[in-house]
Amino acid sequence: MAVYTDIAAEDLAPFLADYDIGDLLAYKGIAEGVENSNFLVHTSRGYFILTLYERRVAESDLPFFLALMEHLASRGITCPQPVKNRSGQTLGRLAGRPAAMVTFLDGVWIRRPSAAHASALGEALARLHLAGADFAMRRENALSVAGWRALYEACRERANTVQPDLRAVLAAELERLERDWPQGLPQGVIHADLFPDNVFFLGNKLSGLIDFYFACTDTLVYDVAICLNAWCFEPDHSYNVTKGRALLASYARTRPLSAREWEKLPLFARGAALRFLLTRLVDWLDVPPGALVRPKDPLEYLRKLRFHQKAISVRDYGIDTP
Amino acid sequence: MAVYTDIAAEDLAPFLADYDIGDLLAYKGIAEGVENSNFLVHTSRGYFILTLYERRVAESDLPFFLALMEHLASRGITCPQPVKNRSGQTLGRLAGRPAAMVTFLDGVWIRRPSAAHASALGEALARLHLAGADFAMRRENALSVAGWRALYEACRERANTVQPDLRAVLAAELERLERDWPQGLPQGVIHADLFPDNVFFLGNKLSGLIDFYFACTDTLVYDVAICLNAWCFEPDHSYNVTKGRALLASYARTRPLSAREWEKLPLFARGAALRFLLTRLVDWLDVPPGALVRPKDPLEYLRKLRFHQKAISVRDYGIDTP
Repeated sequence: MAVYTDIAAEDLAPFLADYDIGDLLAYKGIAEGVENSNFLVHTSRGYFILTLYERRVAESDLPFFLALMEHLASRGITCPQPVKNRSGQTLGRLAGRPAAMVTFLDGVWIRRPSAAHASALGEALARLHLAGADFAMRRENALSVAGWRALYEACRERANTVQPDLRAVLAAELERLERDWPQGLPQGVIHADLFPDNVFFLGNKLSGLIDFYFACTDTLVYDVAICLNAWCFEPDHSYNVTKGRALLASYARTRPLSAREWEKLPLFARGAALRFLLTRLVDWLDVPPGALVRPKDPLEYLRKLRFHQKAISVRDYGIDTP
Repeated sequence: MAVYTDIAAEDLAPFLADYDIGDLLAYKGIAEGVENSNFLVHTSRGYFILTLYERRVAESDLPFFLALMEHLASRGITCPQPVKNRSGQTLGRLAGRPAAMVTFLDGVWIRRPSAAHASALGEALARLHLAGADFAMRRENALSVAGWRALYEACRERANTVQPDLRAVLAAELERLERDWPQGLPQGVIHADLFPDNVFFLGNKLSGLIDFYFACTDTLVYDVAICLNAWCFEPDHSYNVTKGRALLASYARTRPLSAREWEKLPLFARGAALRFLLTRLVDWLDVPPGALVRPKDPLEYLRKLRFHQKAISVRDYGIDTP
């Protein structure tokens, strides 16, 4: 749940007058995203999402995110499309914050995705990677292997308060991944946060992708590994091989993986699990006592990490003959 | 800001199947109302608001509120219109809570209303009172004079921690109003909470009234007094006689007030100020230390009360010859 910044109608109407999107009819603060303030805006031309960017998003990254959404939409990916103002800009300013208007996407996210949903996600992810191939801008991934040690340092002292031995597990895994992290695999634009709540469906049909505010330039198969973690484990933390196979096979039909990408997938899955384990742990330890909002459970990702540590090849993920 | 209860798409779709409003296309939790969870729902037939009623609304009152909105809409008042399900019911159940779907109203609320807005509000309030005249159901007002002593008892011990002497002011005012509260004036349906955030405008034209969850059966001029308090004071707590005159004259053009109603208006204004002073004070003292949400300032209503205590007649509110 979000909406950090309140906007008065008296301030929104003049802001909208800079866009060719008709008159303001209604707007509501919506509970979407945890990083920014979002409003659903109804004008005489339709429905839009207005985002005010709050502290956690670096203003210098906004041109990358907005240009990426424009690029992907122009390549046929259904994602929020930034609306240009009368000066041709997609980035404006409102209530003292950077602000952008994007098109409203229909669709709902699925809390308990099936293998069919995972299959649709796999294809959409591959199409996203292909569509991003000729995107000219670059953005480093601050949450890949080079960024994990700083996260580890931030939480190592108190890691064992969450689970005994957690610090040792993190230290060993970090050392292993820093040593063996694969180089030279195909890179490009990755979404980097394509959890179920960022993927819209209408019925069983995938209708759109949202929230590109972690997107960056990185190894494509790392994005696949993030999705495996996010889509293919059950509430009891067991790996669902049917969903995993559906996701991977569907991805590979659209963008075939090389033998080396298949080979390294288990290692990327470990990395993806460590990334979310570390960021969730930092958030978990950062919460003031008595806070109303409970952050996501980091130990969910410890259990996923342990699954990946035992995996020998993609066979363990349901793919027989890569 | 609200949204207390999360709804999964997998649960919402079957709930909506009980209504003849098309297929679910999208829904967003919205930051509207502080008592309930609200969702903006897009279906193939249009936009709707889904409300889940949380603890603060008594379930036994819901039939009154929903029937009232239906009644008022049928009399031409623009307000949310409850949608009947296939069994002809407006009240359903979702996520363990009473739930209702109402039509979506365009319009925005005005943070800094002008005299023109106050005039439009006065007319709308009078039309609401006239439209409610033949509404058959009754609901006692728990927040009128008979309910204030219990509120006072709940906060008297700590009242002076908010402002020295506040307890004595409350005690004296309560005694005076209990003794002199006027009886026998015209009664009917009152909104009882028609603050600016419950009144929508499109341009300078009033486009709708929302949030009927304090509506009840009470003296009509008490509702006028609540609006005087809510609409006609400036941020520095001074009374704006131009706005007050606009509101009262506009109301009286649509529903003329009797000489006795005019005469008693200053006393009702005191009562309305005491009512919001008491409820805000209870909320203020009820907040746990360190809470993120700051309740509304009770002392705003102490200042309004003092203005009304000095008023001798409606002349002090800008009306010359009642």
